[in-house]
Parts: sequence; C-alpha cells; structure tokens
Amino acid sequence: MEQRPTLKTIHRAHQRIRPYIHHTPVLTCSTINTLIGSQLFFKCENFQKTGSFKMRGASNATITLESSQAKYGVITHSSGNHGAALSLAARNLGISTSVVMPSNTPAIKQAAVNGYGGNIVFCEPTLDDREKTANKVQQETGATMIHPYNNYRMIEGHGTALVELLDEVANLEIIMAPIGGGGLLSGTLIAAKSLRGNIRVVGVEPVEADDAYRSWQAGKLLAPEESNTIADGLRTSLGNKTFPIIRELVDSIVLTSERAIYKAMRLVMDHMKIVIEPSAAVPLAALLEKRIDVSDRRVGIILSGGNVDLNTLPILGTKPD
Amino acid sequence: MEQRPTLKTIHRAHQRIRPYIHHTPVLTCSTINTLIGSQLFFKCENFQKTGSFKMRGASNATITLESSQAKYGVITHSSGNHGAALSLAARNLGISTSVVMPSNTPAIKQAAVNGYGGNIVFCEPTLDDREKTANKVQQETGATMIHPYNNYRMIEGHGTALVELLDEVANLEIIMAPIGGGGLLSGTLIAAKSLRGNIRVVGVEPVEADDAYRSWQAGKLLAPEESNTIADGLRTSLGNKTFPIIRELVDSIVLTSERAIYKAMRLVMDHMKIVIEPSAAVPLAALLEKRIDVSDRRVGIILSGGNVDLNTLPILGTKPD
Repeated sequence: MEQRPTLKTIHRAHQRIRPYIHHTPVLTCSTINTLIGSQLFFKCENFQKTGSFKMRGASNATITLESSQAKYGVITHSSGNHGAALSLAARNLGISTSVVMPSNTPAIKQAAVNGYGGNIVFCEPTLDDREKTANKVQQETGATMIHPYNNYRMIEGHGTALVELLDEVANLEIIMAPIGGGGLLSGTLIAAKSLRGNIRVVGVEPVEADDAYRSWQAGKLLAPEESNTIADGLRTSLGNKTFPIIRELVDSIVLTSERAIYKAMRLVMDHMKIVIEPSAAVPLAALLEKRIDVSDRRVGIILSGGNVDLNTLPILGTKPD
Repeated sequence: MEQRPTLKTIHRAHQRIRPYIHHTPVLTCSTINTLIGSQLFFKCENFQKTGSFKMRGASNATITLESSQAKYGVITHSSGNHGAALSLAARNLGISTSVVMPSNTPAIKQAAVNGYGGNIVFCEPTLDDREKTANKVQQETGATMIHPYNNYRMIEGHGTALVELLDEVANLEIIMAPIGGGGLLSGTLIAAKSLRGNIRVVGVEPVEADDAYRSWQAGKLLAPEESNTIADGLRTSLGNKTFPIIRELVDSIVLTSERAIYKAMRLVMDHMKIVIEPSAAVPLAALLEKRIDVSDRRVGIILSGGNVDLNTLPILGTKPD
C-alpha cells in the first residue's frame, strides 16, 4: 500500500522540485495587521510559476514518474490551476500533457494551458463526457492520470510551501490555508505538525462550498454539493487521500462568506499591491469576519494563487453588498 | 544659489531616509521578457510605503527641514501620491501636514491623506482658489510648501530608487522611467549617469501629456496643455528645476498611446501578479509599441506606484479598443 507523505518525503520532494519552482517571498502589510490586530505573514504562491502552488505538486508528481510511464505522457481533466501547472511541469521534463476540458471553458483558461504547452482535448460540458473522453485518451495514448489533489506526490509537493514559510518566519503560532480538494491543506498539515508540534493549523472554506467542514464535523467523507462560490478553485471536494490526513491533523475548519472573500481580495490588492485569486483570499476573509480569534498572534497565511480574469471579476467593477 | 543634486547628495539622502522607506524588490517576468525580446528588471516602487516612489523624496524633504521651519508644519496642494507620501513622511517626524484639495477630490484620495495623518483643507475646484487657499493656510500657520517635484530635496530622494536598482542588478544597459513633473526622471538621471557613464536613460510620456517631449525637442520649457491621460500621475508638467537636468542628461524621450498604457498595465497585473497604477505602466507601454529598440538588452524599469482605484478604472471592466 502506498505510504502517506511524511516530513521526510516532503523534504525529498523539495530537493527534487527546487530547480523548477520559485522560492516565493513572504510579504507583510502594516495596514492589514492593524485591521486584524495580529501579525500576518503571507506566503505568496500567487508569484509561483504558473501563478499557483499547484506547480509544486505537479513538478513532484511528474519528476517521480517512472520513465516507462513518462514516455506516454500525463493527462488531467482540470482546466484550472492544476491543468496549467501540470502542462509546464511536464514540459520542463519533456513529457507531453493532455488536458481534457469542456468546449465551453473560458478562453483565458484555454490560453494558459496552451501557453504552457499542454494539449487541449475538448469534451461535452458534462462530468460524464469528461471522464469518458479522459478514459479514451488514456487508452489511446497510455498517458498517466495525475489527479489534482488525491495524489500523495501532489500533497508532498504542496507541503514544501510551508517548509519555506517556517524556515523564513520565526515563531508562527497559527497557519491558515484554503481548502478545495484538500491537497494544499494536507501537505501543509504534515509539514507544520512535524516541524512545530504546537502550531495550530486552520483550514478555511467558503460557506458556499462547505463540504470539508461538514465532512470534518461528521467524521466521514460526505458527498459534495454543487457550488458556485466565487472562489472557483475551492469548488472541488475532499478525496479519500486528503480527508484522513485532514481529519487526523487539522485543529479547526472555519467558513467564510462570499462577501468577505470579495472584501479580503480587494484589501490585498489595494494595500499589498498584489493580485490574488478569490480562493487565495479565503483565509483573510475568515479573519475579517472574526471566524477565529488570532488577536496578537503571529499567523502564516498561504496565498494560494493569483490567476483571476480581471475582466470578468465582479469585484473590480462594483462593490458587493 | 541652491546646488543641484549630485550622486553625493543622493547617497546622503539615502542614508537619511533609509529608516522610513522600504528597500523595494526587483522583479522579473519571463512571459514579458519573451514578449518584448529583452531582459526587463522592474524596480517595484508600487510596494513602497504609501504606494509610490514619492515617499523617498518626501522623506528627504521633511528630514532636511530646519527645526525652526518644521515646527510650523508642511503644506502641499497635491492630493495624489505626493499628498499621501508627504503626510506620512511628516508624521514619521512629528510634523503636521496640510493638503489643500478641491472639494470634488475622489473619496479614495481623501482617505489616503487622512489615513496617513494629513489634514485636508478643501478649496473650490479651480487652480486659482487652490493657490489662494494654500497661501492663506501658509500665512496662518507658517507651514513650508513642499513642491511635489520642483524641489531638489525631492529629486535627491527619488534618485535613491535607481541607486538600489543598480546595486542589485548588474550590467543594466538602459533605464526607463515615466515623466510627470520630472522629479523621478531627474533623480534617476543624476544617479544613473554618475554611477554608470554609459548607461542610456529614456523618459516616457503619454502622447496625451507630451509637454516634456515637446519641451525637450524645443530646447526650452513650454507651457503645459490640459491632459486627460489615464496616467493621472503624469498630467503635471516639468518645472524650472527638473527641465534643465532632463535637457542636459536624458538620452531620449519617447511617447506612448493610451491604449498601450492600458495593455501594459493589464500585462503586469495578469503575468506579474502585482498591482500598478497607469503612470507606472507607461515605460512598458512604450516597449509594447516598439517606440524604442531594446532587443536583447538588459533594461531597468521603475514601476513608480500602485495607487489605483480598482473600482473606477475602465481597464478592469472592459477591454479598451
């Protein structure tokens, strides 16, 4: 049976992926610190290659492929950050990537995958046809499916962001990360709890996509519900590899509203002068709503990505109410 | 007669202001490098305190006040980046700031000045009443007028950004900076030409606010025309302290279109994941339009600021044509 990631395998992943990723900066903002009443340290994975932390896991997952597998390429049906990251991670190694996506996928996401050298395979915009198409391509090409989060190599790679953060910032007391499929939070939990036994790790989800929260409360993996949260990276639900790690190690999962996500995103753009995607704004959103008490604490927050279509995002044209 | 700034006075300014400013990072972007066909190094003054390079000059101008002057405070009628920077620079030293601004000044600019502790004095929205009001406040309070750019202490302070850039990035061949009142370009020119005699320095202006270009061509300071360029920080015209420095030292002044400014700004936000104001996008805009040949060159670009009202900027809601 496949071994769960450990600090040791995360460290090994870090060695492997280092030539292919950015060591991203940690930024602080005195205005936001004053507003929240604590010291926040933002790990800027929005500056990561391909614009999100996914490059860490995707690099690890492709580098660790056997050459007998790698020659047939990799495949995914994530048209978002994972599709872009996998395309570049594979291209860095001379491996081809197929990304199955519905024909109605926004042009900006198609362009990202294309730009990083991925081959787009269009399908009908149904879950059924997406899987059917992916299976067909796999049978034809022999490509290896790289799951966006329910994959230990992805989780290990994602954990490296936290290793860098703890290495750079002393005495962090609380770590916050958004939860989509749980890959980032799982890697974060293993790294954080192994390196600093007494650090608290809090996962944050939109109220509108609260499957991890409900599963955590219930103590079992619940079926997802459809979600339209603006934090589009967090619409996915936990998998059978991420849920056990989260259930065992997480200190708390808190929820936050769509309105606070808008507000947090604008706060970061206005005061830190950096572009983040809605999913990355979710932990700060929870702090704005006081969903967790961090008064006077030193808090590390993973800004998971910066891929947002500035043309379509309502926040930038109008103030939400 | 007051001495023009030199590399020596810029270095002294740097020592003075260091406790009050950020040493801003230099960022690069492989996507933009490929697009332009050269290596661009962006000095990120959008991350500077108060969100623009003005904090450098304003800090130097306030620190160098005699205490007999400082006790009566400082005054300006710039409601933009200079007003905000002067407010904070003065507050850092316990000096009070009055900022005269028209009653119809956008709320976001009022909030910035207020947030940094400046006292707003409203006037009618005419140039005449603005000056009259400023004179009145000066007479009542004894405050010292700190001009946004036609002031050698401001110019010296602004030159420190270039010192940091040349210190960090080796073998730069071309430096580009936007031109508003010419303070940033003047300080940049003195620092660059003193430190690296053979470096080329290019100033960039919007076609819609081309007073520096016309003055440079004519060899004399021409009267400004009204401008509505989106690069609102560049609507001002050169002064009698900045024009002689620019005329003597600049290698070239080039112009760029409004459309290219929009495009450059979006390019930076989309690919570098940082927020810049339109004025800061002007040098890259000129490169997009090939207004100057930088093929295979190492180019330093000063991203002058990041203060932009994301709610009102048309670029973010619609694509300009």
